[in-house]
Amino acid sequence: MYGIEKSVLLISKSGTEANIRHMADKVKAKGLNFRPHFKTHQSYETAGIFKKHGIEKIAVSNIDMAYHFMNAGFKDICLAIPFNPLQAYHLKNLSSKSRFCITIDSPQHLDLYNEHCTNSTDVMIKIDTGYHRTGVNSGNTSEIMDIIKKINWQSRLHFKGFLVHNGQTYQAASRKEIANIHMDSLQKLQILKSRFSEFSPYISIGDTPSASICEEFGPVDELRPGNFVYYDYMQYQLGACRLDDIACHVIAPVISVHPDRREVILHCGAVHLSKESLYSNGHLHFGEAMRISREGEIQTFSPPAFVTKLSQEHGTVRFSGQEAETFLPGDLLAIIPVHSCLTVNLMKHNSLYID
Amino acid sequence: MYGIEKSVLLISKSGTEANIRHMADKVKAKGLNFRPHFKTHQSYETAGIFKKHGIEKIAVSNIDMAYHFMNAGFKDICLAIPFNPLQAYHLKNLSSKSRFCITIDSPQHLDLYNEHCTNSTDVMIKIDTGYHRTGVNSGNTSEIMDIIKKINWQSRLHFKGFLVHNGQTYQAASRKEIANIHMDSLQKLQILKSRFSEFSPYISIGDTPSASICEEFGPVDELRPGNFVYYDYMQYQLGACRLDDIACHVIAPVISVHPDRREVILHCGAVHLSKESLYSNGHLHFGEAMRISREGEIQTFSPPAFVTKLSQEHGTVRFSGQEAETFLPGDLLAIIPVHSCLTVNLMKHNSLYID
Repeated sequence: MYGIEKSVLLISKSGTEANIRHMADKVKAKGLNFRPHFKTHQSYETAGIFKKHGIEKIAVSNIDMAYHFMNAGFKDICLAIPFNPLQAYHLKNLSSKSRFCITIDSPQHLDLYNEHCTNSTDVMIKIDTGYHRTGVNSGNTSEIMDIIKKINWQSRLHFKGFLVHNGQTYQAASRKEIANIHMDSLQKLQILKSRFSEFSPYISIGDTPSASICEEFGPVDELRPGNFVYYDYMQYQLGACRLDDIACHVIAPVISVHPDRREVILHCGAVHLSKESLYSNGHLHFGEAMRISREGEIQTFSPPAFVTKLSQEHGTVRFSGQEAETFLPGDLLAIIPVHSCLTVNLMKHNSLYID
Repeated sequence: MYGIEKSVLLISKSGTEANIRHMADKVKAKGLNFRPHFKTHQSYETAGIFKKHGIEKIAVSNIDMAYHFMNAGFKDICLAIPFNPLQAYHLKNLSSKSRFCITIDSPQHLDLYNEHCTNSTDVMIKIDTGYHRTGVNSGNTSEIMDIIKKINWQSRLHFKGFLVHNGQTYQAASRKEIANIHMDSLQKLQILKSRFSEFSPYISIGDTPSASICEEFGPVDELRPGNFVYYDYMQYQLGACRLDDIACHVIAPVISVHPDRREVILHCGAVHLSKESLYSNGHLHFGEAMRISREGEIQTFSPPAFVTKLSQEHGTVRFSGQEAETFLPGDLLAIIPVHSCLTVNLMKHNSLYID
């Protein structure tokens, strides 16, 4: 199959394009701006599909990624993670060569950032509406006002708005819970938008589950999802996509067969899939193992089979039935990753795009 | 500190050398051969420390790694994972340029391997003495005999011996349990060594916990550990090393401070540490967070602080006391990885060796 000799990330161009088109159309229909997060794919080839659909604004999660995509011609880049002051000197380059927007969640080091920016630079304040990772608590309006003022005191920094990531949707038990998290966040953002109306705050939100599932976006101006580009088993289980929407699989060779344990062992481990795991059907697993038909179709086993153990380079696939008997070393299986962002990060230099 | 601006893997050369010297001395004192597994470090610089100590035989876990270290001058390489027949064509190169040894656990494809080997090539049979990942069950002597005969029928293949990896020691609850797993495996290998004495089987075992803790090696000819080179939190918790023996840390910048939750957030996530986790003191974590003194000493917090949440690029450190109040964005913390093999694989192109 495609001359594959070792574990490879197979990316469906048509599947990726369908996911991009679907999200871009939805964002447009809602009258919002689209700023996809490029941390999921980190790829020039996938970036090219976005470009083809007219998408020019992007989000990234580190400075290297900002340079990577600036070099690919993206000139409107938001670094959607609180700025690391040890990297302030990069602002000179980045702010002179692109419309570069930074994110902060404290008033520290603003003078340092200002000093290094060559052009007027937008600053987003990271707001916490419930994920409790980074960000100023949305209820802490006095601190938010203090930060806005301190941003605008700086000659080259300009307060642009509020940036939120509701990562807690990834742990939701149902589409209804995702919708509730999203609506709660919108309410908090609506209050902030009114409270700080004098600054006309621009509002950007980001998680793939709510971007995929929800239809109301209230005070939001911009959607910033990333994971939707390929989706994965976690998004499927959350109800954010169908199994057929998943546009990336790891194709992996069988190296050991154990019908007595109903298992086959793949040369595909934590260095390929990542150790991200998920409970499905009451069992912890590291991805769904799929059959590859003679025609190259990727099909679920019935009942489904999962990667149940993972070490550095080995993955154990356990079947419910006697399927292990039908495999020999050198046969290939396809794995749906639990979390495509982490799998792609590991496999980005070993990927294969198919039509 | 060392001009660090983003998450970096800091490797102590003196710590690494001490771990190598200690293991090499132990192996020598036991009258065994040493074939360290290079999958943990994957590095020319660390390989150079092994060479300095006269170590020339190595184990690797994939074909790319075999080429990588063959190009660094290693000429006696064992691929210690069941051979993937889709990569048989590499045997021509590898067997002509090095003393290359392969591992198998079934009689399939031997004619294919023979066809591609240019020189006489040693074949190890992977034996399962209890881990239940790959390998022929050690009690299945008729299958083992069948495989030995089929290897030796091939003109260029030569049955060398038995290769075991007792990965179940990584899940042991105590040093005593590790010793029990090890002794059980030795008994099974002793039986095989007698049963197949006509072939003078060479016996290679591999896991770091038993190599570090155990003193009896019975029928074993060769030790093949890898993880000991840097050790990690898992090995410390197993009792295989002291905290001071750990020779690699991830140095990571604080980007967000939350004293109200006793947390700081690092720009250091699953793409830096891996999502390998461990229960310590009743809590699941992704590594111990350590203080870096003014003098650059890495010191444990009291009580210890752990990375309690991990997303793609963010790590949350939770303290027991009020330590979060003392941090600002841009401060650095050191993280002891749970599993150095996976962390190093992610950070190998972003590492810094210090004396």
